[in-house]
Amino acid sequence: MSDKDSLIQSTDPVSRGDVESVAGKGDASGTNRPEDHFDVHANMKKFYDIQKSPPPAEVYDWQRHHIQVHDQGKDGYPLNIIIDPAMREMYQHVHAQGLTNVFDRWEQQEKIRCGFCIQGLSCQLCAQGPCRINAKVPRGACGVDAHVMVARNFVYRHVTIGTAANIFHAQQAARTLKAAAEKPESGLKIRDQDKLYKYAEMAGLNSKQDVSKVAADFADWVLADMGKPYYEEAAMVQAFAPAKRKDLWRELKIFPGGGNSEVAFAQTKCMTNLNADAVDFLLTSVRLGIINEYQGLFALDILQEILMGTQKIHKTRQNMGLLKPESVNIITNGHMPLTAHVVIELASTPEWQEKAKKAGAAGIQVLGHVCEGQQLLNYTGTQSMPAYGGQEGEWLSEEYLLATGAVDLFMFDYNCTVPTLPLYAKRFGTRMVSTHEVIRLPDTEVVEFIPEKMKEQAAKILDMALEAFQRRKAENREIYIPPYTSECTVGFSTEPIKAALGGTWEPLLDAIKKGSIRGIATIVGCTTARYGQGGSNIFRIAKGLIGKDILVLSGGCTSSVMEYTGLTRPEAAEECGPGLKAVCRQLGIPPVLSYGACVDIGKMTHTAKELADALGVDTNMLPLVIGAPEYLEQKAVADACTAIALGWLVHVAPVPSVTGSDVVVKTLTETTETLGLGKLMVELSADKTVQIYVDHIEKKRRGLGI
Amino acid sequence: MSDKDSLIQSTDPVSRGDVESVAGKGDASGTNRPEDHFDVHANMKKFYDIQKSPPPAEVYDWQRHHIQVHDQGKDGYPLNIIIDPAMREMYQHVHAQGLTNVFDRWEQQEKIRCGFCIQGLSCQLCAQGPCRINAKVPRGACGVDAHVMVARNFVYRHVTIGTAANIFHAQQAARTLKAAAEKPESGLKIRDQDKLYKYAEMAGLNSKQDVSKVAADFADWVLADMGKPYYEEAAMVQAFAPAKRKDLWRELKIFPGGGNSEVAFAQTKCMTNLNADAVDFLLTSVRLGIINEYQGLFALDILQEILMGTQKIHKTRQNMGLLKPESVNIITNGHMPLTAHVVIELASTPEWQEKAKKAGAAGIQVLGHVCEGQQLLNYTGTQSMPAYGGQEGEWLSEEYLLATGAVDLFMFDYNCTVPTLPLYAKRFGTRMVSTHEVIRLPDTEVVEFIPEKMKEQAAKILDMALEAFQRRKAENREIYIPPYTSECTVGFSTEPIKAALGGTWEPLLDAIKKGSIRGIATIVGCTTARYGQGGSNIFRIAKGLIGKDILVLSGGCTSSVMEYTGLTRPEAAEECGPGLKAVCRQLGIPPVLSYGACVDIGKMTHTAKELADALGVDTNMLPLVIGAPEYLEQKAVADACTAIALGWLVHVAPVPSVTGSDVVVKTLTETTETLGLGKLMVELSADKTVQIYVDHIEKKRRGLGI
Repeated sequence: MSDKDSLIQSTDPVSRGDVESVAGKGDASGTNRPEDHFDVHANMKKFYDIQKSPPPAEVYDWQRHHIQVHDQGKDGYPLNIIIDPAMREMYQHVHAQGLTNVFDRWEQQEKIRCGFCIQGLSCQLCAQGPCRINAKVPRGACGVDAHVMVARNFVYRHVTIGTAANIFHAQQAARTLKAAAEKPESGLKIRDQDKLYKYAEMAGLNSKQDVSKVAADFADWVLADMGKPYYEEAAMVQAFAPAKRKDLWRELKIFPGGGNSEVAFAQTKCMTNLNADAVDFLLTSVRLGIINEYQGLFALDILQEILMGTQKIHKTRQNMGLLKPESVNIITNGHMPLTAHVVIELASTPEWQEKAKKAGAAGIQVLGHVCEGQQLLNYTGTQSMPAYGGQEGEWLSEEYLLATGAVDLFMFDYNCTVPTLPLYAKRFGTRMVSTHEVIRLPDTEVVEFIPEKMKEQAAKILDMALEAFQRRKAENREIYIPPYTSECTVGFSTEPIKAALGGTWEPLLDAIKKGSIRGIATIVGCTTARYGQGGSNIFRIAKGLIGKDILVLSGGCTSSVMEYTGLTRPEAAEECGPGLKAVCRQLGIPPVLSYGACVDIGKMTHTAKELADALGVDTNMLPLVIGAPEYLEQKAVADACTAIALGWLVHVAPVPSVTGSDVVVKTLTETTETLGLGKLMVELSADKTVQIYVDHIEKKRRGLGI
Repeated sequence: MSDKDSLIQSTDPVSRGDVESVAGKGDASGTNRPEDHFDVHANMKKFYDIQKSPPPAEVYDWQRHHIQVHDQGKDGYPLNIIIDPAMREMYQHVHAQGLTNVFDRWEQQEKIRCGFCIQGLSCQLCAQGPCRINAKVPRGACGVDAHVMVARNFVYRHVTIGTAANIFHAQQAARTLKAAAEKPESGLKIRDQDKLYKYAEMAGLNSKQDVSKVAADFADWVLADMGKPYYEEAAMVQAFAPAKRKDLWRELKIFPGGGNSEVAFAQTKCMTNLNADAVDFLLTSVRLGIINEYQGLFALDILQEILMGTQKIHKTRQNMGLLKPESVNIITNGHMPLTAHVVIELASTPEWQEKAKKAGAAGIQVLGHVCEGQQLLNYTGTQSMPAYGGQEGEWLSEEYLLATGAVDLFMFDYNCTVPTLPLYAKRFGTRMVSTHEVIRLPDTEVVEFIPEKMKEQAAKILDMALEAFQRRKAENREIYIPPYTSECTVGFSTEPIKAALGGTWEPLLDAIKKGSIRGIATIVGCTTARYGQGGSNIFRIAKGLIGKDILVLSGGCTSSVMEYTGLTRPEAAEECGPGLKAVCRQLGIPPVLSYGACVDIGKMTHTAKELADALGVDTNMLPLVIGAPEYLEQKAVADACTAIALGWLVHVAPVPSVTGSDVVVKTLTETTETLGLGKLMVELSADKTVQIYVDHIEKKRRGLGI
């Protein structure tokens, strides 16, 4: 425990408050990096001139050309995989300054990875460890074998964390609904009363009451259900899950109880010298996947739609070019746009726009980063608020975003808030504000989440942002905004799609039955900085799928990719196979329907349930594949478990850290399907991935006799 | 994910159902192992003769001599550290057969440990990883630094699991109390009504009702409190925690809400790219420590005492010599003796003893292993049941116990159930039965935990045990029972000690004020197979402390060590300093008071609270040290967080995996104390440990002006 044992040098640049340099970096021209249209050339000053935005079409053409001539391998990394033109410029800008950043860090880590950890064959649970397993040493000190070690690692490192996080989010949304009901002055409103009444009725609550009473009752019902013990069936699963699935889950003894108790139950099983059955651990994961949906994803989706207005299809623009040098630019980041929603509403008032002008700004705008931005893009509540400036990037671009120098205040409430941001904020002059107690970063400010006082808190944040803008101007800080925005048509989910179809699923089902649409693939989740990924794997797969007449739904950082590559434009119909092209043209929709955020996956399962009900089949019969081709974190793993529970094929890349156990691999990729559940599939090649999706969809079509 | 990627060979001996051999082992004489009194010599047949038990005094003398002439280093491992005579013999027996076993596995692992993992500098959370941090690569791919990586690992690998597990245990006890109240025929009884009424009143419940109504209400109150959200103060903390502590916890914003939600909240913080404040993670750990106590340890202790009868001081015997070759030997193992209690009660009836005789046995006895056995040893309810045969070992001896061949049925309900037991059970003829859904082992049977049907389930288990005994006899299986038992006086806790003192704490406080007792040390937790440990570190420290007039309380596998080394005999007073010796002689008590199990630590905090109240001071003023000199698992870490919350110095060994961050080390070992909390202290040398305890106790004495 002495200082000399620490690997942290006292000269650690972090403690000096600087952004760290990356050893051996700083070569902006990028040896081994191919010349490319949007690459940055030697003269870095160029960055500080506001360039004219190239026509988006030129960018789209470049992206399509780029993935044809550049593979996804190691050579040319990371410029071979970065296809977001804004991130591409800013990466080079940051890299040239020798600053620590996600792509360079990933490459550094690639050189010192642990082969045991990659396979899940390393355990750090107890004080007899750490232990590692190999062919000569087949058990940990306690006696655990490879199968149990791998399965247990999977549960406590990934599934319990992800499940807890989605339920936590829904818990905050339920608290907020309650505050909106009981303290109408708090700042939040009940915007979709019909939805509230619909789900309150499904919950068995008395809906013949005043809306605020129904809202409070519904919030209480949700919160109480989350607090149930694991051994009492969760009412939310009983109320909202497909009937045939519920029977199966009971039969398999994986019907969950209250979510928090389920997480604690699973976490308990992971104790040293406790549960030692690999298959039991994996079924526990599926059980967690069920509650991850009904007290997590689906719950938070309906709660937020009640508060922010159900999604609506509309046209908008996306990417960093939305930043305005002369405006107060607030970025809201994370996944829980509760405080953010009130901030935007307040910022949209003439009073606050006036204040901004008095502070010397052209105005005040709030942009949403990552999934926070995707959600805000889609809710009718924020679509109608003029201060919402749009979404401007996936999580990988966060450090690069701050490096523009144009962000006055960066508020954050949940995950996908990169730990290095305080360093960037300090260097590039951004004020960082946590808006929820679940997240703290050193050297940042706090405006706490208080559901009953959202308006008051939002006003504080706006005041802080004005001060930050004034400081930026007073210091005459250099900024550079990459001049790129993309057109996109977004806001898809169950209700708006059904409405667009004329209030019935028949036209879509007819197209599927007829074969003009072969099936549906959801391309959801994160992006990673890995070789072959960085958004480019998502792009390649999505393009491949629409070319095969498979309709794609997106949610998460995948939506950003779809947006900045132009796949969410109706014009992308031209890239489809003939069947899907005709459908898209007829309806005026893009072939990739953005449902928004990763946390909007509950809206996709909702659509799927409605389609299965309309077809009169169980959910596992649908011609549907779930893909997470660049999955990163724990919620994505929990969501994969949800999909397995619902009977779907789930494609993931990169390779999960479970390869150290053939039992675990076989259980997840084969056995679960034999039980009526879905299964996992791992594939890194985009081309092969597309073919596997096609084959699976054709198999399911045959199962339906279509 | 292909087979060739797996490190598990298809020729894995596990899949053949054998106990694995340990490569290069099998030398029973033990080169490099010093000749020693209880060592096994060449002729292994000797093991199969029932030996005469050596007088216990001879064993005690040998143990004391042994630790004087043998150090705790690498040479001579593991016989230099194994001081339990039974485990010592059986280790050699098992080792000679080349079977996988905990000491040999630990030694194998010692050769392939990862230096990054040892320091907490390895992260496997997300799919951009695994990552490792060193001086040249100071951040993970996401940007996490050493401090956050280490602190986050500490929370999600250790603290949340341990906290969840203790609360889970209390949840099962509450369910059982409810069943006892509502279904009196279920098999469980309410044995301590006074305690029930006392705590029901403290909970603010109506205690002027029938006992079964009060019990059901109290159980409901506990279960509801566990289900509360994290943002509502837990009623159990409000009702049971010391007043000054509660004020401090509120001030530090670590007053917890419902335990399951707290676990989920903390787990959520551990998501990739979420919380990135090392100090916040550590304060979260202390917050979990609070709920670990009041909805975990303390809760389960009072619930179980209500059901099984509050502890009572009594004399008994301990160790493997309690196995009877001609009886049906059932071992109950784990930490939740709920089903086990009913099994023992049923086995104690003439009807079941008669059945055993009809099956050809001398009788039927249930022995308790690890903490399950310690608890059953202490409750008045089981003390009075003739079929309870006593406790016979710490967790390290579990494989060796099964190797006796004398265990007919091994029932297990919770942690400290070693994953290799099914292999031993198969080889040595033991029937393995899980009695709780929280634990499954492959190739074992299940009699599920159903609180409302405990008697029915217990009868099934007894039937299975009789069958197993008959099979043992029919197959004429070889058995060897190491002929050792120790005398011990156990069953200490708040009420029996206070009663023994004449109903007041004054005599004890007078002895402390006068200085004949300088202070109190709890030596609690596990044992490990590490160099220097194996029980011997506990023994050395305990002997050192009583020699310095420090009264020792034990709980956990430490109690087994105290028992098999004779320190829980009143005669051990002779090994004390003059002050403690006189007190022990006067009261007829040993200098080490066994409170029982690790889960009985809640009883120690209860005693400490009463002493602090009697002195009129906050708990952190007491001349008290908490020691876990051979801590192993996650509940032990959560318990350490409890002790820090209560303001105490906590000694741990081995070194926790936090040395990779000087911020984390400093926060846990220094900063927390400045906030009015306790702090952690790490020391591996027994002699130095004793001196640190003495110094701390003297400092606290000076603080009290005594």
